[in-house]
Amino acid sequence: MNALKKLQSISEKNKSMLCLGLDIDLRRVPKSCDESPKGLFRFAARIIEATSDIVAAYKPNMAFYEALGPDGLSLLKMICRRIPSETVIILDGKRGDIGNTAEFYARAVFEVYGADWTTVNPYMGYDSIRPFLEYKDKGTFVLCLTSNPGALDFQRQEIKYKPLYLHVAHKVASWNKEGNLGLVVGATYPEQLVNIRQVAENMPILIPGVGAQGGDLKKAVIAGTDSFKKPAIINVSRSVLYASGEDDFDQAARSAVEKLNGEINSLRKSRTDQ
Amino acid sequence: MNALKKLQSISEKNKSMLCLGLDIDLRRVPKSCDESPKGLFRFAARIIEATSDIVAAYKPNMAFYEALGPDGLSLLKMICRRIPSETVIILDGKRGDIGNTAEFYARAVFEVYGADWTTVNPYMGYDSIRPFLEYKDKGTFVLCLTSNPGALDFQRQEIKYKPLYLHVAHKVASWNKEGNLGLVVGATYPEQLVNIRQVAENMPILIPGVGAQGGDLKKAVIAGTDSFKKPAIINVSRSVLYASGEDDFDQAARSAVEKLNGEINSLRKSRTDQ
Repeated sequence: MNALKKLQSISEKNKSMLCLGLDIDLRRVPKSCDESPKGLFRFAARIIEATSDIVAAYKPNMAFYEALGPDGLSLLKMICRRIPSETVIILDGKRGDIGNTAEFYARAVFEVYGADWTTVNPYMGYDSIRPFLEYKDKGTFVLCLTSNPGALDFQRQEIKYKPLYLHVAHKVASWNKEGNLGLVVGATYPEQLVNIRQVAENMPILIPGVGAQGGDLKKAVIAGTDSFKKPAIINVSRSVLYASGEDDFDQAARSAVEKLNGEINSLRKSRTDQ
Repeated sequence: MNALKKLQSISEKNKSMLCLGLDIDLRRVPKSCDESPKGLFRFAARIIEATSDIVAAYKPNMAFYEALGPDGLSLLKMICRRIPSETVIILDGKRGDIGNTAEFYARAVFEVYGADWTTVNPYMGYDSIRPFLEYKDKGTFVLCLTSNPGALDFQRQEIKYKPLYLHVAHKVASWNKEGNLGLVVGATYPEQLVNIRQVAENMPILIPGVGAQGGDLKKAVIAGTDSFKKPAIINVSRSVLYASGEDDFDQAARSAVEKLNGEINSLRKSRTDQ
């Protein structure tokens, strides 16, 4: 089964287009968890246990694990193994290097950690992304328009009357011969998301920036899916993962996901009833 | 001592502006080395032993270590510790993520692995780079114009009559309040390197792409240093590291570095005599 089908299949089964970011931040993990790799694994395992029937994907961001040194990468590997096999793993690394080197990054995310999808940076162009595409049953989301203030510095600059991020979207659509590419577009830009959704054809869009970063969930869902006609996945991280600082963190995370799923599903109902 | 001074000091001491890429590729490591982490460490340690008095820096690229899983990161840590403390470590990760996450990447390269310099990707803009700058005694090279074919896809596209990579160079120069930024510019574009050198003011330029990638050493050195008036560092990886497939690989690497140093130093002599 290819990566897009896997994403659609779990999304239908769990009635969810949510992805939960597994960004383990020692400053925010509840005090009742100990900070050893074992303690952090238990924290993640309880979060997964409490939410795996109501999310479509988990997205560990590699930065949080790298900062813990080699043991952090062992922790990441254990967490990836704990994720149920039908659930999608999006390993968020935003990697990008010349072709010869990108091969090694692709091997790391898809073979060492067993991710279904990953994220890459487009700045270095096609040959930096090709080694990822060669894993035909795996998927790659390319950064297009990100949710942070720095998106203004380059991504929104105009090249021939079109912002750079739209050039990226067009190029990525043209590279998508195997149907295993997607785009990353921040929820903080719902208007731009409408334009990108048109260029993206049938590619899935990964939409971070809802929650702690302030993106509007409803606008992002409608724009990202073209009113539920195209695939998109909404990522939430900190607002769910650290919904409670007490030992009920797993149930608090579940409640937060249920609330978001409810909002999306009632929106879907009102739109498809029209 | 800040990162730029450290680079200049070792460069003067060893009469070298060369950086040796430590890209451990199992397919190319001499057959006499065993492929366990211990065997790979011995390979790297012998290369360092044979070259540390004639290079200014070592540049491990994180991709090669990540592909070996958590053990590969332990190997990277051991290799970084083996590099003499006066020699510069450039940990090449080309990372980039939103500010909250970039903090963790910065911590990994500077604190876990003790790098003096690292590389980052500019696509996500200032807030993705700022956490690196906050390490005032550490240095950060920002990708500007890379040596691979994909540089054509976005970096060389024009925004307001100037290619994207020059906008990046200007922005990075404006962010360089603490004197701890640099640029990465491939040796494969000597003409563009002349323009970037002007914009870069006193920032050092890291120049990969000499050797296996076909960049012209002499042109790159002259353009990158503005005829030895500005700081630059030339990276060589595969052509030196795998100069011999036999057990004399360390001495072959030394000879290859000596040859390149000789070419650069005779060029410097002929230029400064003029």
